[in-house]
Amino acid sequence: MNAVETPWDRKDLIAIEDLRREEIEVIHELAASFKEALQNDPASLPSLRGKTILNLFVEPSTRTRLAFEIAAKRLGADVALVERAASSLVKGESLRDTAQVIEALQADAIILRHSAAGSAHYLANVVDIPVINAGDGAHEHPTQALLDTFTMREKLGGRLDGRKVTILGDILFSRVARSNIFALQKLGAQVTVSGPATLVPEGFRDFGVEVNLDLRSALADADVVMLLRIQHERQTSTHFPNLGEYQSLYGLNAEREAWLKPETIIMHPGPINRGIELDSSLADGGRAVILDQVTNGIVNRMAVLALCLGHPKGGAER
Amino acid sequence: MNAVETPWDRKDLIAIEDLRREEIEVIHELAASFKEALQNDPASLPSLRGKTILNLFVEPSTRTRLAFEIAAKRLGADVALVERAASSLVKGESLRDTAQVIEALQADAIILRHSAAGSAHYLANVVDIPVINAGDGAHEHPTQALLDTFTMREKLGGRLDGRKVTILGDILFSRVARSNIFALQKLGAQVTVSGPATLVPEGFRDFGVEVNLDLRSALADADVVMLLRIQHERQTSTHFPNLGEYQSLYGLNAEREAWLKPETIIMHPGPINRGIELDSSLADGGRAVILDQVTNGIVNRMAVLALCLGHPKGGAER
Amino acid sequence: MNAVETPWDRKDLIAIEDLRREEIEVIHELAASFKEALQNDPASLPSLRGKTILNLFVEPSTRTRLAFEIAAKRLGADVALVERAASSLVKGESLRDTAQVIEALQADAIILRHSAAGSAHYLANVVDIPVINAGDGAHEHPTQALLDTFTMREKLGGRLDGRKVTILGDILFSRVARSNIFALQKLGAQVTVSGPATLVPEGFRDFGVEVNLDLRSALADADVVMLLRIQHERQTSTHFPNLGEYQSLYGLNAEREAWLKPETIIMHPGPINRGIELDSSLADGGRAVILDQVTNGIVNRMAVLALCLGHPKGGAER
Repeated sequence: MNAVETPWDRKDLIAIEDLRREEIEVIHELAASFKEALQNDPASLPSLRGKTILNLFVEPSTRTRLAFEIAAKRLGADVALVERAASSLVKGESLRDTAQVIEALQADAIILRHSAAGSAHYLANVVDIPVINAGDGAHEHPTQALLDTFTMREKLGGRLDGRKVTILGDILFSRVARSNIFALQKLGAQVTVSGPATLVPEGFRDFGVEVNLDLRSALADADVVMLLRIQHERQTSTHFPNLGEYQSLYGLNAEREAWLKPETIIMHPGPINRGIELDSSLADGGRAVILDQVTNGIVNRMAVLALCLGHPKGGAER
Repeated sequence: MNAVETPWDRKDLIAIEDLRREEIEVIHELAASFKEALQNDPASLPSLRGKTILNLFVEPSTRTRLAFEIAAKRLGADVALVERAASSLVKGESLRDTAQVIEALQADAIILRHSAAGSAHYLANVVDIPVINAGDGAHEHPTQALLDTFTMREKLGGRLDGRKVTILGDILFSRVARSNIFALQKLGAQVTVSGPATLVPEGFRDFGVEVNLDLRSALADADVVMLLRIQHERQTSTHFPNLGEYQSLYGLNAEREAWLKPETIIMHPGPINRGIELDSSLADGGRAVILDQVTNGIVNRMAVLALCLGHPKGGAER
Repeated sequence: MNAVETPWDRKDLIAIEDLRREEIEVIHELAASFKEALQNDPASLPSLRGKTILNLFVEPSTRTRLAFEIAAKRLGADVALVERAASSLVKGESLRDTAQVIEALQADAIILRHSAAGSAHYLANVVDIPVINAGDGAHEHPTQALLDTFTMREKLGGRLDGRKVTILGDILFSRVARSNIFALQKLGAQVTVSGPATLVPEGFRDFGVEVNLDLRSALADADVVMLLRIQHERQTSTHFPNLGEYQSLYGLNAEREAWLKPETIIMHPGPINRGIELDSSLADGGRAVILDQVTNGIVNRMAVLALCLGHPKGGAER
């Protein structure tokens, strides 16, 4: 990893909002080369052997934890896990103290999942080792947006300029939506958000996206429909219709599929609530690229780890 | 691992019932060679380096999880763990979706422990990667039977044809009993089951085993006595005598040991309820081969992993 | 690791009380060489590749678990974890049975954290593989004392003979205090203990330490002030003042800092209760060597693992 050849000059990955288009592209290019290497020549992968990466999941997420763990191990790194439940390190200790202990334990990077927006940014200023944001409250989930836009580029032919992406569902509370809106705009796509008015506030127009509460027209010209997981366990009843209502008004089913263009692809960050935001016939159908998203999550996270740990301020110098 | 030289032609290990005798024997031969290699020449072991094996323990079992984890690591593989408690991957998501995500995460094999009979079989049809059954409800626990029969062969001189094995305890609910009955019959042994009538139904005669509720005669001509763990936490009161009754009527103790032939060995899959199904004097005595079973569990699981991942449809081709 | 060249002749590390001064020194020398190697030439580290070390944390401790895990991985070993919550291995099974199963699983060493004093000693007699005590009840926490005295030697110029160390806080219940008292005395330091009379019994004079309940004079001539974590969750109300009282009477703050000599260093085993036993201005100030303690914990644990596993009775012979 040579910092001179790439425009990458960060020890951390905190937010898509901070990145320039070229930075997103350099991650995607590296991820694409890793994808090829994993199939053909794993020995050509850069090595993080001897590095120890700490998965600090103060907010649990098995899926994201596993993806980072597998990505790190594919590069030869060791991975240690601290989860909230098991963590006396975390209990009664400030996040700052926890992070400084992890750094003092000579870990080479921290992957942080936390329920507080801004926690990853805060941590990155406290420690010298790389911090990768694996989701911080309602703020951002940058690697999700990296793998999502990577998957769109793969499926739509390389560039997203002028492409139309409709994000449907709980926009208000979604860090996935926020990160994707930033990434898509930087890559030249036009973003429409849709869903129940309580969850799709007009104020999102300030982000430069179209707010279209008419589902049919929001779907009609989309190249990509990105569904969000309905996190009914998190919602307050005042914002959220009940699940039956949501399904009947906004669920993507065979009937509404007819509104889509023939080549439109369907994305979902998982886990799917089958029969609620997405019917099984579509989740398992030809338009869905949901498992590609999962697979691309490995190589995009490998790319992020390689870039951040390869940064002069990253672990590579240790 | 050359599929042409061996009769192994499976990507999965789901049930002993499915295997031919030669398949059991090829696992045992490979396990024996691994046992020798671990002592003399670990470098000669086949390598699963770069492979990622996922322990999916929807039903928890520390002992079995550890044995598979250590077996995989002895072959150089990486191991990731998903347990029910920690698993938002599993929660609210079908087993099928979970498995497809694991496959999309590019794991090379899934080791599944699940409370539902048939879950491993179902999974093996859903994914292309190998699935190893680490216990599925009351159905089967094939690697336990492989290590048990391996240990018997080691202790009894190589072949089990004509040998008499008495399985004592909770036959009705035991996947360990079921898998062992299949394995022992395929290897030519004669199986007797004994214990309380409520737990040793006459219907087991249909499996070709002898049902003998008279403990003394069931023990008298056995070459092997295999005890089952009394899983009092699982029993319904209607089937099960209380622990004191069980101990006094069926517990193996010094008095009943006198009924055994001098060379009879005592087996137990662990963890032992000392003083209930087995007295400590016997558990720690010269007849017990219980710790040999544990040790042989490593090499038999190594053999299963090597064979399944070495299968052309297994992870070796990736 | 050559047992002939060193005075190390133990397969286990159970208690500082058992060690001779030269044994502590050989651990420190090895730890110092590891510290240098980690910075300059990691390839020169002795290898535990192929070894499997089992972290058996019957009493949870994320911080100590992580430190041992990272230490073992830095030497190339594999690490498996059994924690109480997840452990059906432990539940309903004696510690002895658990340990024998771990040995039969061919683990190469056990790192034990347990709430019962004497548990590590007991275990070391039950199994042939090395047992490292990671804290056993109120008895000892030997690796904590090794890293603490290592840090003192590093900061105070190599030798502790004649140095004065004041340990402040909950002496009565603290295994950290006990292990440090033994280590410091063996290394020639003079130990004073101070704190509330209910937690600093006169009987500690029998250990050869000075008991000084007057905080000012206990701090005045100390070269090192070692604070203990106030474990308010463990205390019974009869022994322990409330937190506000503790803070106002014994908390180390800027005012009391003025009582210290200019060069006195402040230590804490973590996690810190900021504002209770130690004010943030001091925890983050120039006297504090708290993060050095954490870092030195890695290399001291590496040294212990290398010495015990290098012992002829240790795992190296397997």
